[in-house]
Amino acid sequence: MNIHAAGQLSRPKIKEIRQKLKRHIHKTPILTSRFFNEHISGEVYFKCENFQKTGSFKIRGAINAALKIIGHDKETTVITHSSGNHGQALAYAAKVLNINAVIVMPNNAPRVKVDAVKSYDARVVMCKPTQQDREKTCEELKHSLNAYFIPPFDHIDIIQGQSTCAAEFLEEHPDLDYLLTPVGGGGLLSGSVLATKALELQTRVIGCEPKNANDAFLSLKQGIKLPAVSTQTIADGLRTSLGEVNFKILKDSKIEILTVSEEEILHAFQTVLERMKIIIEPSCAVPVAVYMKYKERFENKKTGIILSGGNVDLHPLFTDLKNQIKPHLKDNE
Amino acid sequence: MNIHAAGQLSRPKIKEIRQKLKRHIHKTPILTSRFFNEHISGEVYFKCENFQKTGSFKIRGAINAALKIIGHDKETTVITHSSGNHGQALAYAAKVLNINAVIVMPNNAPRVKVDAVKSYDARVVMCKPTQQDREKTCEELKHSLNAYFIPPFDHIDIIQGQSTCAAEFLEEHPDLDYLLTPVGGGGLLSGSVLATKALELQTRVIGCEPKNANDAFLSLKQGIKLPAVSTQTIADGLRTSLGEVNFKILKDSKIEILTVSEEEILHAFQTVLERMKIIIEPSCAVPVAVYMKYKERFENKKTGIILSGGNVDLHPLFTDLKNQIKPHLKDNE
Repeated sequence: MNIHAAGQLSRPKIKEIRQKLKRHIHKTPILTSRFFNEHISGEVYFKCENFQKTGSFKIRGAINAALKIIGHDKETTVITHSSGNHGQALAYAAKVLNINAVIVMPNNAPRVKVDAVKSYDARVVMCKPTQQDREKTCEELKHSLNAYFIPPFDHIDIIQGQSTCAAEFLEEHPDLDYLLTPVGGGGLLSGSVLATKALELQTRVIGCEPKNANDAFLSLKQGIKLPAVSTQTIADGLRTSLGEVNFKILKDSKIEILTVSEEEILHAFQTVLERMKIIIEPSCAVPVAVYMKYKERFENKKTGIILSGGNVDLHPLFTDLKNQIKPHLKDNE
Repeated sequence: MNIHAAGQLSRPKIKEIRQKLKRHIHKTPILTSRFFNEHISGEVYFKCENFQKTGSFKIRGAINAALKIIGHDKETTVITHSSGNHGQALAYAAKVLNINAVIVMPNNAPRVKVDAVKSYDARVVMCKPTQQDREKTCEELKHSLNAYFIPPFDHIDIIQGQSTCAAEFLEEHPDLDYLLTPVGGGGLLSGSVLATKALELQTRVIGCEPKNANDAFLSLKQGIKLPAVSTQTIADGLRTSLGEVNFKILKDSKIEILTVSEEEILHAFQTVLERMKIIIEPSCAVPVAVYMKYKERFENKKTGIILSGGNVDLHPLFTDLKNQIKPHLKDNE
């Protein structure tokens, strides 16, 4: 595959992809927050992919990639390894497209994530919780089942699918000065870059990354793809290293990466939940944290933030409430 | 005051109140959820007062009542005792109307609630955490400050303010078969009853109450106002007993009350957060729990649910995340 050529997106191509995805995904709402607009004197818009099917933007890429395969072969099985949103997305994509999905998951994955994948009728295969065993298990199954491997971010079909999120956002707000997205593997960020270019807009796309997993920041600074050394961040969706295709697109476009600390991420997470009363996952608090930290950059500007997902473990909250009612679980009749 | 006469609301009167409140409150969005529509074969609409100013519908009544007073006297002070949403609402109402507010709060009130009231520039006066001391402190201050007492629910101005929520809802969906609201003191429920009548709609309003604080259920069954005997429920906004005015309105209209257990409330709370990715408080999970429990009643019907507020203590969630990052709080540079 010629990465450079494949990395091109045009206005008609985006339209075509959006048309194909349309009946499988939500056109997610764009919210504003008086709190943010008052505290940082600019205008900020939030594209709510936390309300997306399966709880994250990942469904866009998963459906787009799966649709490509179906074009060749109707009786098919897709496979991936994932402990997170991509696994759920691919399982759901397979369900709505009426094909089979196998998701390889580490045996220490949270029960709630395993259940979510199973709820979409995918087959879950457990493996040891190491990258090596995940890949090995996946590779073996791929061959024995004659399945198609759908990677989480490092593929142009995935990137083009994710590009539809920024495209929807920019269609409603073509005058955004900035567009902030989180960056982990780089699917959403490189998709957003391609969409902005294809739509010939002046919007400046910025990647937002945890300081504690800053491989994109370092890779783009040094011009060579470096692996993530540390991944100790609560932004669990961003612990992974940049993909090859993703790095190429970001490097070619000279994309800026801004980083934030764990405290800043947690503070932004808390602010969104308490002020906006919506649930986001820590990974998507990262661009919000960037917006709050570098606020002088965004003053009197129009900024868009993609809230990438809402799959956070809420059990600590439920457990706390459960403990409160325990003494009086014998209800009045 | 002639309660019966005062309890009347007309279409022009609602319009007039809505007009007065308009610039101080949000017209909150109405959401749908594919999950709920698929799992209970009916149509359900959620009016999101959790996104309202101060995080609950209480601001509607507080502003309406405060505006009445300002009509008589521009230099004024309003006072109430509250450990919950009404205190925040009145503090905010006073701020936007440029009058003074004093909120008497029990000295065991959560810090976050005290801070919220203070953030609206209200004066907080602490008292002992007993109903008696709350009322005494409030009464003394009312006299010494020549302040106006604004009750949380037992007053027609409050009820008429709250009626605007159902009015907004029914304007967009005049064909609702059912309208479910929580019932504690009865401000929101009796306001919803008056709005439905004034708009001459066939919508059947149902009050939703925790079994563990079922004084409205028992009072309306027996035809006399009974105090809440037990108030051991996680639906902390619904622990209070019905107000006099509220009881009269509900009794005259022969309103039905349905009750749910603590487990059912918690399950509904969990379902809304996990599936809809929005934050509600346990009190407003009560009508959702009723909808899920009595689902055969609502099959093939169009039902509206007022999600009354979103002020829940999220600290267990934040603490859990904080503990996760503690080991690596020393960020990379």
